[in-house]
Parts: sequence; structure tokens; C-alpha cells
Amino acid sequence: MPESQATATAQEQRLELISRLADAGTEPSAADLGQLRASHPADLADIIEQLPSEPRLRAVHLLGEDLPADSLASLSRRVLDQVASAIDPGLLARLTGELETDDAAYVLECLDETRRARLLKEMPASEAELARQALEFQADSAGRIMQRDYVAIPSYWTIGQVIDHLRDSPDVPDEFYALFVVGARHTPVGTIPLHRAMRTHRDVRVADIMTRDPKVVQVNADREDVAFVFDQYELTSAPVVDAQNRLIGMVTVDDVVDVIQEEASEDMMRLAGVGPEHDIYTAAVQTARNRFNWLLINLFTAFLASAAIAVFASTIEQVVALAVLMPIVASMGGNAGMQTLTVAVRAIATRELTPANAARVLGKEVLVGLCNGVAFAVLTGLGAGLWFSSVPIGLVIGAAMIFNMVVAGLFGALVPMMLERARVDPAHGAAVILTTVTDVVGFFAFLGLAQLTLL
Amino acid sequence: MPESQATATAQEQRLELISRLADAGTEPSAADLGQLRASHPADLADIIEQLPSEPRLRAVHLLGEDLPADSLASLSRRVLDQVASAIDPGLLARLTGELETDDAAYVLECLDETRRARLLKEMPASEAELARQALEFQADSAGRIMQRDYVAIPSYWTIGQVIDHLRDSPDVPDEFYALFVVGARHTPVGTIPLHRAMRTHRDVRVADIMTRDPKVVQVNADREDVAFVFDQYELTSAPVVDAQNRLIGMVTVDDVVDVIQEEASEDMMRLAGVGPEHDIYTAAVQTARNRFNWLLINLFTAFLASAAIAVFASTIEQVVALAVLMPIVASMGGNAGMQTLTVAVRAIATRELTPANAARVLGKEVLVGLCNGVAFAVLTGLGAGLWFSSVPIGLVIGAAMIFNMVVAGLFGALVPMMLERARVDPAHGAAVILTTVTDVVGFFAFLGLAQLTLL
Repeated sequence: MPESQATATAQEQRLELISRLADAGTEPSAADLGQLRASHPADLADIIEQLPSEPRLRAVHLLGEDLPADSLASLSRRVLDQVASAIDPGLLARLTGELETDDAAYVLECLDETRRARLLKEMPASEAELARQALEFQADSAGRIMQRDYVAIPSYWTIGQVIDHLRDSPDVPDEFYALFVVGARHTPVGTIPLHRAMRTHRDVRVADIMTRDPKVVQVNADREDVAFVFDQYELTSAPVVDAQNRLIGMVTVDDVVDVIQEEASEDMMRLAGVGPEHDIYTAAVQTARNRFNWLLINLFTAFLASAAIAVFASTIEQVVALAVLMPIVASMGGNAGMQTLTVAVRAIATRELTPANAARVLGKEVLVGLCNGVAFAVLTGLGAGLWFSSVPIGLVIGAAMIFNMVVAGLFGALVPMMLERARVDPAHGAAVILTTVTDVVGFFAFLGLAQLTLL
Repeated sequence: MPESQATATAQEQRLELISRLADAGTEPSAADLGQLRASHPADLADIIEQLPSEPRLRAVHLLGEDLPADSLASLSRRVLDQVASAIDPGLLARLTGELETDDAAYVLECLDETRRARLLKEMPASEAELARQALEFQADSAGRIMQRDYVAIPSYWTIGQVIDHLRDSPDVPDEFYALFVVGARHTPVGTIPLHRAMRTHRDVRVADIMTRDPKVVQVNADREDVAFVFDQYELTSAPVVDAQNRLIGMVTVDDVVDVIQEEASEDMMRLAGVGPEHDIYTAAVQTARNRFNWLLINLFTAFLASAAIAVFASTIEQVVALAVLMPIVASMGGNAGMQTLTVAVRAIATRELTPANAARVLGKEVLVGLCNGVAFAVLTGLGAGLWFSSVPIGLVIGAAMIFNMVVAGLFGALVPMMLERARVDPAHGAAVILTTVTDVVGFFAFLGLAQLTLL
């Protein structure tokens, strides 16, 4: 496969370049700098990110004026913050001014207060004003990912007029995928995908070929909703309107792809109790602090589980086999619950799980818990019974297993549904609630049944 | 916010429609059927998916000829399989024939052997042949998501010739975002985004405005690699070539968005031990079976952890506080390790974690484990020491905590890196290896230290 080979080679060359540049002791060779300069802006950003701190700043310094503006916008938050501090303020202002509004806002957002103010002052006035406006929209809103350039045309034009306008007007964005048709008070009334415009003869009127009732994005809409609309209706761009339904910008699919990646990352991170602001370039101490809170909550719930065990301390003293076996029930419940939880969280995110089918999914998950509960009751009961040569121990652990796995299925589905209904991110905190339940129920069911039947 | 309201209302209307249609007792009203017919194909697919089995088939039956082909392609695998069996074979063949090649292949892929053969026979011959070819490409390869229609032009044409060709040729795909420029033996030598073509005067030559060295996708490339290229270089479409570097198709960004969503789902599911072929529409027994293997592995590792405890049974008999406290160290190690593991798996997927920075990330994660290990050693030591009024117990649990959290950081980063190097999906099985390590080390460190120091 020549392409995979080609990609592998490009990737390998990049890795070799990084390892040469990462050597803080030697100055980069002219050939390495040349390779750096010849890289695509997105690849250059990856190289800069993967360098250790010092060589990273040196590389940025050596690139100087040759650093493409688009590389800046492709950097992770923390790396961008560090890199920006090492770039000459005038150059930084010029680069940021070259970016599309949403990318310029991203750069500004990553800087601290003072540096942001200074950058805004040094940027071209009109770009600074647009970026300032973008920053006023809520984080995670469509306003933050829209660009302010778009092509708006009246519906009474002919395609010929549109083409002449595009060819001769300097006021057209660098990239666009559709023409937005506006009516009175700049309200979007239709869209024309470029491929349709290109196939249409010059004398045809815009009104005759435009898609009416276009999918329009409100500037305050949550970016997750925007991503859903793009995914659902296979859009490449969409007009953005303000509260008065006036066209004020455009969201394009490349920004939406980033949103989809970030939202998927956030859900995964939240399920594991890692803050969403986290990235692999964060320093160790800061990383430890980011993860501390989640672990603290877990410590609290671990003590809760211990308290459940402590209730049965005297039983354990008499039958030490219980201490040996008790983590099994809790662990299986936790794992089965996390399976259900993950499926439910993802299905809520992709909008496959809605109030319309929630009851059915809940019922199904309880049934799944029951099926696997019975299966693992048999296996675990046999294993434990044989190990300690005790039928009662086998029966007790089996019964506790069925009970805990049904509970796991129930709570694994119920917790994210209830969080979603309470308008809390369903991934957020769901895992800790769930594992607390499965731990406490697991220990209680097993040790409680043992106390009732074995002594 | 009018738009969110509008969306909410549309969503609510959909939910109400679903609950009315879900009522198996009453026939759907004419108004409900009208609403169903007026739905966007993607929304209609969502409605069909969220209905219970019987009303789902009834709805499809009532829609009959009005079922849009695109709705079929938007259905989840299992729902599509069920729905297809309820559609008249002739209609199914007509609908599938209307789809783009990649979507037609998806429909065929979801059917069983006999039904697939029959559908291929009833489809229009040329479409059937293309779909058959698509199915011959490996699952998860670019060949499966490409469409066979594209616009190819020679570099010596003028833009005027291109426009005339597009306007008059019947042989142009429904949707396209770029013109592919081909040289000798149909090799892609450049691309022109439509917005650039539209802004260019008729007399300019293609060769003068095309982007040279376009990003080309090999037909056998992994679709994850294709998604990376689209994301990295912000593409909306890319030419697909065969082993001889001849243009044979086109991948578009809407298919890539689906790939990104699916790959993110798969990683989440794998981390939680849920098979990737899983969806929420799978029946309970099948779901239970899908999740059984993962739970079986977990049962095995849980018994391993129990075996570690059993080594110290006599110690536990003497100091029952150990049985009460021992899950804490294991649980904290498991949680800290899952934080690291999730970050590492995601960073590998988004290609932020590469061999170039692996050693640094590993070192950082060990350091993070040490920082939080010390912090939680103090907290847990104090808590446990006070609870059981014993300084030695506090010291033992603290020391075990530090040790286990460093191990968690080390293995949380190392396991996915090693799986990646062994060309195994890093999400696959990583969690089970990790939690086995943190459980066994957690119990061994705590109980072993206790035995050495307390008795």
C-alpha cells in the first residue's frame, strides 16, 4: 500500500525531526529548519506540540516570521499560551489578525488578561473588534465557532450576477461552501450549495434554485446542538443568525469536526473523572491538581464502602473467606454497571436515547443485568463454593451476584438519564454515583446474606 | 433563544409523534402519517429507530413507496436489518439503487447472505456491480466510505470549459465540493475547491489555479487514517486512488464525520468492555451475550485479586480492620489508573501522543501518581488511623497508597502505549490489564505491609 507507506514515512520523518530538534544541546541544522518551514501549518503545530518546552520555544524563535498564522490556531491551549509568550508582540498581533474570527478569538482566549489586552490593542482595529465580539459570546456557543465572512446574495439576482459578483468583489471569504440568500432585514431565506450554483446556467434566478427553509444556527445555540445539526443533515456550512434572525456569520464543517472530536474527548474524560480542560501538555503538578477532586470524591465513597464492610466485621472475623471473596461481587457489579453507563452516555450524546425510548432501554438493561447476573452467579458460586468447600458460601455469593448485577443495570441506565433530565452532563459524576451504589450494594448483599445464613 | 426553542419544539413534536405511533393498539392517524412523510430523511430514520419493534414495522409498511432511500442508509445496523425484511423486495432494490455507492454497500452489509444475494440481483445492474466492488474492500477501509461519482477534469482546460462541462454533462455527482484534476493514466495531479473555481474568470487555465500535490487517499487506507487527514488538513473531500495511483472515487466530509463519531464511540465502548458492534437497539439476550466475555475476564481477574487477599487470610483474621480498609487502596489505584489510561488512549487516538513524546508523558504520569499518592496517603492515613485509633494502620495504608498510585500512573500510561506498539487497539483490553494490576498490587501492598509491621 503505497499511501500507508507514504504516510508512515512522512510520520517517521516527522518523528525523527522532532527527536533531532528535541536535543537541547545542539543547534538545529539548516536542513531541519528547512523541513520545519516546509511543513503544512497543521503538521508544524503537531511538531511544536510534541517538543519539550525549551526546544519548542527555540523552534518557534528560529521560525520567526515564517511561523504560519494557521499553526498558531492549531496549537493546544496550553502550548499556545506558552508559545505566544515567546513571540514578538507585533508579530503575534499580525498573525492573529490574519486568522478567521473564530480562530483569532481562540488565540485571545488562551492568553492571560494582560497579554490579551495588549494583543487586542496591537491587532488591526476591525479584526480586533470582531474578535472582541466573538469573545463576548458564551463559551461553547455557535458564536465562538462562527466566522464573520460569508457570501450573501439577494434572491432576485441571476446566477450570472452571482458569478460576476464573486469574481470581482474583494469582499468574499477565503473559503465557503454555499451561498446564503437573504431577504428583507438580512434574514436568510435560502441557501445554494456551490456545486448547484456551478451547474446552473447564468440566466437562472437564485430564487428558482435555492434550498428554502435552510437549516439556520442561532448564535447562542450550544455548539453540541450545532454539531448535531451538521451531522444529522450532512451540512458543510450553515448561516448563523442573531436574536432578530439577521444573518451575522457562518459555521463551517471543519470547525464542527473539531467540536465533535472535543465533545467525544470530554465525555470520555468525564467518565474517567478527568477535567475537560485537561490535555497531555499540562504540567505534572497542575495535572495532579486537576485530577485530585475526582479522586477525593472516590476516597469518600471508598470509605462509605468500608463502612458497609465494618457493619459485618464480626462475621468476617468468624469466616475469613468472606473477606477474601467480597471484592468479587462489588467488582463485577461495578464493571457491569460501567458497561451500561457507557452505552447510555454515548447514546444520549448521539441522541439515540431519548425520552421516547428511555423506559424500554431501562427495562432492557435490567434484563441484561439479570441474564448476566444468573450466568455469573453460577460461575462464581461454583468457583467460590469449590475453593472454600462450602455450598452455603457458593449460594450466598451467587445470590448476591444476581442482586448486584440487576442493580448495576438499573443504575447504569438510570443515573445518566436522570442527570440528563436535570440538565447536568450525563457523563459528569455518573461513574462515581454508579460505583458507589454497586460497591455498597455488593458488600451489603454479600456480607448481609452471609451473616443471615452462615452463622 | 428562538432557535433552541424551535429545535426543542421540533424535538418535542417528534417525541409526541413517536409516542402516538408507539401505541400498538390504535392505527396511526392521517395527520401522523403526514408528519412522518414530511420529515427529513435523517429525522424519519430517528423516529423509526426509536419506535418499538411492532409499531416500527407498521410505520415502515404504511410509508411504503414514500420511504426515502436516504432514511434507509441513516438507520442503525440492527434496525435496518429488521426494517429491510419488512419492505417489498422490489421496493428495497429500487431504494438501494438510488443510494450513493457507499450507502448502498452499507445497506447490503447489514443484510444476511440470502437477502443480500437477492437484493443484488434485483438492483440495477451497474449499481449492483459498484456496490459489490465496495463490499470487496476491507471493512473500515477508505474503499467502504468512498463514492464512485466525482468530477475529473484535465489540467489544460479553462475554467470556462469546466463550467460548460458541469452545466451540460449529465454525468456529474449530486454533490461535490472540489474538482479533481487528472493527468496521464487518470492520476490525480491537483484539486480545485469549488469556491476558487467560482471566483475565477472563464479564460484562466485549470493548471494555473489548482492546488498541486493534493492530499490523496489510498483505497485500502484505514478509515481512521482518512479521518485524521480530513481533520488535520480541514478537507471537505479527497480523491481516492487505487494501487496504481489512478483516481477511482471520492470521500466526502459527511462520511468522515460519521467515521469520527463511530471511532469515538468504539474507543469509549472498548474502555468499558462493550463490543463495538453494540448498539442500543440490540435485544437484551444478544446484549447480555456481547458483554459476557468482558465480564468473564473480569471475573477471572477478580478471583486473582481474591487469591492475593487469601495469602494474608490469617493476618486478616487477627486484624479485621484490614478487611474493612483493604478495598480503599485498590479502588483509589484503579480510579487513578483509569484517569491516566483514558487520557493516554484518547491522546493516541487524536495522535497527540506519539513515540516522540511517549517517554515524557510516561514520566509525567508517574510523577502525577506520586503527587496524588502522597496527598491521598496523608488523607487516607489520617482517616484510617483515627477510625481504628491506630498509628501503624494509618502508616501502612498511607505507604500502600503511594505505592499503588505510582504503579497506577505507570501502568495507566504504559499499557496503552505497549498495545499501540503491538498494533492492538490501545483501548482494547487496557482497562482490564490495568485494574488487575492496581487490584493485586493494592491488596498485596496493603496486606503485605500490614503483615510485616502489625503482627
